Amino acid sequence: MRALLLTAEGPQLQTDYPTPQPGFGEALIRVRLAGVCSTDLQLVAGYKGGYRGVLGHEFVGEVVEAPGNNRWLGRRVVGELNIGCGRCDLCRRGLGKHCRSRQSLGIIGRDGAFADYLTLPIANLHVVPDGLSDEAAVFVEPLAAALQIREQVAITPDNRVFVLGDGRLGLLVAQALALTGCDLTVIGRTPAKLALLQHFHGIYQPTLNEAPVMAELHNQPADVVVEVTGSPQGFAQAVSLVRPGGTLVLKSTFAAALPNFDLSHLVVDEITLVGSRCGPFAPALRLLSSGLVQVQPLIHARYPIDEGVAALDQAGRKGVLKVLIQPL
Amino acid sequence: MRALLLTAEGPQLQTDYPTPQPGFGEALIRVRLAGVCSTDLQLVAGYKGGYRGVLGHEFVGEVVEAPGNNRWLGRRVVGELNIGCGRCDLCRRGLGKHCRSRQSLGIIGRDGAFADYLTLPIANLHVVPDGLSDEAAVFVEPLAAALQIREQVAITPDNRVFVLGDGRLGLLVAQALALTGCDLTVIGRTPAKLALLQHFHGIYQPTLNEAPVMAELHNQPADVVVEVTGSPQGFAQAVSLVRPGGTLVLKSTFAAALPNFDLSHLVVDEITLVGSRCGPFAPALRLLSSGLVQVQPLIHARYPIDEGVAALDQAGRKGVLKVLIQPL
Repeated sequence: MRALLLTAEGPQLQTDYPTPQPGFGEALIRVRLAGVCSTDLQLVAGYKGGYRGVLGHEFVGEVVEAPGNNRWLGRRVVGELNIGCGRCDLCRRGLGKHCRSRQSLGIIGRDGAFADYLTLPIANLHVVPDGLSDEAAVFVEPLAAALQIREQVAITPDNRVFVLGDGRLGLLVAQALALTGCDLTVIGRTPAKLALLQHFHGIYQPTLNEAPVMAELHNQPADVVVEVTGSPQGFAQAVSLVRPGGTLVLKSTFAAALPNFDLSHLVVDEITLVGSRCGPFAPALRLLSSGLVQVQPLIHARYPIDEGVAALDQAGRKGVLKVLIQPL
Repeated sequence: MRALLLTAEGPQLQTDYPTPQPGFGEALIRVRLAGVCSTDLQLVAGYKGGYRGVLGHEFVGEVVEAPGNNRWLGRRVVGELNIGCGRCDLCRRGLGKHCRSRQSLGIIGRDGAFADYLTLPIANLHVVPDGLSDEAAVFVEPLAAALQIREQVAITPDNRVFVLGDGRLGLLVAQALALTGCDLTVIGRTPAKLALLQHFHGIYQPTLNEAPVMAELHNQPADVVVEVTGSPQGFAQAVSLVRPGGTLVLKSTFAAALPNFDLSHLVVDEITLVGSRCGPFAPALRLLSSGLVQVQPLIHARYPIDEGVAALDQAGRKGVLKVLIQPL
C-alpha cells in the first residue's frame, strides 16, 4: 500500500509498504481522509526524537476487516489513538491512555493514518453518523482534544476566558469554549485566522496579539487562559494573563524546555496549571453532527497521498490551517 | 515597644519602636505568642528582596483597642494576614487576598507580629475559643494554609497521596490530609521528624527519602502529591511521583527559578499543578479545638522576644520545627 513514512531522512512516500494485519480484537480500516496536526510536524522536526513509521492520527475510514466482529464491517469510523497494554498499574487504574508502554497511532509504536490502511482495536472505534461528512468527521480527534479542557476544568457561563493562539487547534478550542456562554477573547497574530471566528456560533472577541491591547487585557486578567500557541513565549504570556486563583490550561507541547520558570509566582498567586491532551470522541461527534461546531472554514487544502510530502510542507507554513490528505 | 525588625543589615531587636495606631475599622492587638515560619526565614534570606519592617505573621493576641468596635475589646484573637485595598478589580471580584496593592502582615507593607503590639482590620480577626491554648492557637495560620489544599483539590478517601517534606508545614499538611481517610505517605529526610507522625490521628506511612524506597513509590505513583520541601530539587522529585492525570500541589515558595522546566511532560501526562497559599481560619480553629489536629509535638523551643534574633537563628537550623516568640 501507499504510506507516508517518517524516516531518519525525513518524511517519504512509499508505494510498496506492507498492508498491516489486524491483531486480536482489531480492525483493518481503509483510510478515507486524514488530517495533518501540529504534532505530526513536531515529529518531523524531531520532537520525542525517534518516531519512525507511518505518520498521522486524525482520520476517518471504513472497516474492511474485523475478524470475529463482523458487525463492524463496512462501518465508517473514527478512532481514538492511544492503545494501552491493559495489564499495568495505570491501565488497571483506568488510565490506559497514559499507559507507559502504550502505542499511539502515528506517534508511538503503531503505524498511522497517512496510508491506504491502518489497524486499531475495535474498542478504539466510534461509528460516524450517516449525516456527517468525511470533511467534518476528520476533525473529531482534534475537537475531542479541545473538549478535554471542559472534562478537566469547570468553565462557567460567567467566566472570563482567553484562548491564546489562533491556529488549527486554537480555533477548535475557541468553539468548544464559546458554547459555555463564557466571556471569550481569542488572541492571535494572524488577522485572516481571527476573521474566521465570524463563521462560528458564539460570541468571540478576536484580538490581535499586539502591545496596547495586551496591556489592557493584563488589567482585566482571565479566570481561565488556554495556551495553544505551541511556543515557550506563549506560555510566559499566558501566565501573565491569568488572574490570581485562576487556571491556565496547557494544550501545547513544545520541543524546548522553559529556561527559567518561576514557580513561586504560581504559589503566591495560587494559579492552577492543567496539562491537557486527548479527549472524548462521543461529544465531538455530537457537536459536529448538530453543527454547533463548524470546521469547514478551517480546511486550507486537500492533497492526494501521493503528494503527502508536499502536504506536510504546506501544513508547516505560517498562516496555514488544516491540510487534509486523501488516499483515494 | 519592642519589635524584631528586618533591616538592610538583617534582623535586629529594637526596644523603642513606635507602637502602631489602629486605623479606621482596625484593632490594636497585644501579641501573646507568635510563631516563626519558613517565610520569615526566606524574607531574612532576601526572598522578594526588600521587605523592611517588623517580621512575623503567625500570632495569637488580645484586642486592647478597637475604636468603634468595643465588643472586640479583651477578645483573644488570631488574624488573617492579607489586607486588600477593597477598591481594585481583584478586590471587587472577591480576590482581596490577592490584591495587587495588598498589605500582608510582616511580609508586605505592614509591621508584623514579632513585637509587643500589631494592628489589623477587625475583618481579619477570629476569636479564639476559651478552651484553646495560646500554644495551639498560634498554629491557626499555618494550619489554615495546609487546609487550603482541601479548598482547592477534592481529595477523596480512596486517593493515594504523598506529602513530600517533613518540615513545620509538611507535618500540618499531613494531618490536614490524613483526616480525609486517604492512603497517605509522608516522605521526609529526617527520621526524628517522621517519628512525630505517631503522635497524630490518622494512618501515616512515614518514608525516608532514599533511593530504594523512592524507586518503589515511582512504580505506584500518587493521585495527589503535595510539594512542601521548599527546594527546587523537591519540585523535580514531586513531578516524578504524580500519576498521569494526577495533581501536584505546590506549597513551597523558592527564591530560585527552575533552570529547565519541561512543560510538555505536564501536557502529555495531563498533570495539574496547583499553587496554594493562605487558607481558611475557621476550620483550622475547629480542628485544633477538637484535637483532631495535634501541634504540641511540633513545638521545638520558645524564646522571649528579647532573644528574637537567636530565635530566628534557631528556627533556621536543620531539623528544627516550630520556634515560638513570646513578647511577655
